[in-house]
Amino acid sequence: MATKSRSQQRLVRPWSGDEASGSRRADRLASEEPMAIELDDVRVATTMRTPGNDFELAVGFCYAEGLLDGHQVTQVKYCAKGSAAATDFNVVSVSTGGKAPPPRPRLTTTTSSCGFCGTSEIDELVAKLSPVGGAPVRWEALAAAPEELRPTQELFDATGAVHAAGVVAADGSVATVREDVGRHNAVDKLIGRLFLDGELPATGLGLVVSGRASFELVHKAWAGGFRALVAVSAPTALAAATAEAAGMQLAGFARGGAMTVYVDA
Amino acid sequence: MATKSRSQQRLVRPWSGDEASGSRRADRLASEEPMAIELDDVRVATTMRTPGNDFELAVGFCYAEGLLDGHQVTQVKYCAKGSAAATDFNVVSVSTGGKAPPPRPRLTTTTSSCGFCGTSEIDELVAKLSPVGGAPVRWEALAAAPEELRPTQELFDATGAVHAAGVVAADGSVATVREDVGRHNAVDKLIGRLFLDGELPATGLGLVVSGRASFELVHKAWAGGFRALVAVSAPTALAAATAEAAGMQLAGFARGGAMTVYVDA
Repeated sequence: MATKSRSQQRLVRPWSGDEASGSRRADRLASEEPMAIELDDVRVATTMRTPGNDFELAVGFCYAEGLLDGHQVTQVKYCAKGSAAATDFNVVSVSTGGKAPPPRPRLTTTTSSCGFCGTSEIDELVAKLSPVGGAPVRWEALAAAPEELRPTQELFDATGAVHAAGVVAADGSVATVREDVGRHNAVDKLIGRLFLDGELPATGLGLVVSGRASFELVHKAWAGGFRALVAVSAPTALAAATAEAAGMQLAGFARGGAMTVYVDA
Repeated sequence: MATKSRSQQRLVRPWSGDEASGSRRADRLASEEPMAIELDDVRVATTMRTPGNDFELAVGFCYAEGLLDGHQVTQVKYCAKGSAAATDFNVVSVSTGGKAPPPRPRLTTTTSSCGFCGTSEIDELVAKLSPVGGAPVRWEALAAAPEELRPTQELFDATGAVHAAGVVAADGSVATVREDVGRHNAVDKLIGRLFLDGELPATGLGLVVSGRASFELVHKAWAGGFRALVAVSAPTALAAATAEAAGMQLAGFARGGAMTVYVDA
């Protein structure tokens, strides 16, 4: 199956104060393309993503947003328009055989960091979820996670333009790392992988993310059943309040083995 | 008029390898709340934003997305539900007196970094815009901009959780700085301010952003008529291709007076 590249080459010019100094060199830039997600033939999302792990992204999004409602996924495929040559690699269809409740089409445009939004919708999302369970993740494991994550961020090393998310085990090791131009997409890809492997909820595990912790990321971690979330950068106030409601440990500014604990749960 | 706070206090615990070492201290976290935007009584977007400059955000979003279609804004207000006490500070209504074309409600949920999305929609957005005009911004001015921006990032200094955008003048000075938990919101607030002040298109000016340059940011800069975009971090491949189509200078990794030029236009 043809796949899309996660990065593209482009000629760039270093600039350091002297117009004439920079000779052009090849650089790699992260790919960013729209991908539409359909659930049982209804379009439920369009997101700007880095190609790769598209099926995980589609499944993870549907799972994290609660759209699967406990049902299994029976098929995931790219949209095919009659012939193989016309396959659209930017449209992914997830099927539950019609068992998932019909997604409510939303009559709004929503932007960034928010596939749901609206105060009442946030309340509604959170009301669907039970507090996360299992033993707390050791703080030492969470503090070590960013340094375990860093060497695995291959696309970041090549492009500087993508975020990463990984699963933190009890010993602080990090696995199932996914990268994407969208922080939320990296988490959806990771959650999609765990779902497809029958490994959700992620009871007793941590989630490490390379950037900030917004409400959206805490919500997705909650939906995945993660016991803890550790971010390399800062959480927002709503992220902390949401982690508290989830009974989820939340740490931020995790760098060099130190961090700040926002929720001690 | 009551306003919402841009940040909130929370007790946190520093952690540095010794469970017992960290005594709790007060910290400030950036506020993150959903805000709905209505244009002539039709809901056109919901975004997770940091409260503050809400009217600029609503107007800037409508302008940058092309929804105003050249018409003037006659009123911007918070949604009032019967009484002043019931004012909803998370819903902002923009009015053109019904002159703007009716926004097409979208039957999809869209997520992060993308209020529009879909390859055909991207083509459609870009087709509406003419290449930016005016003399190029001096590379020296663009290279200096991040260091001019940095001391103005007050909310970032307090919280670490927000991005900033500012207008770069020909001499490299930076003005009209706006901060938000969403990069795109910071740019919309800035564009909204310029629109309300009658200063668009931003011919011959640069836009400096504190993070990465995605397609969405280049598109908004293009819609605002900026001649150049300089980012502290990396652009995506689509961002570079879009800047090229716009005839817009694009630089990234602008740090310490050096940077990488992606589009020389």
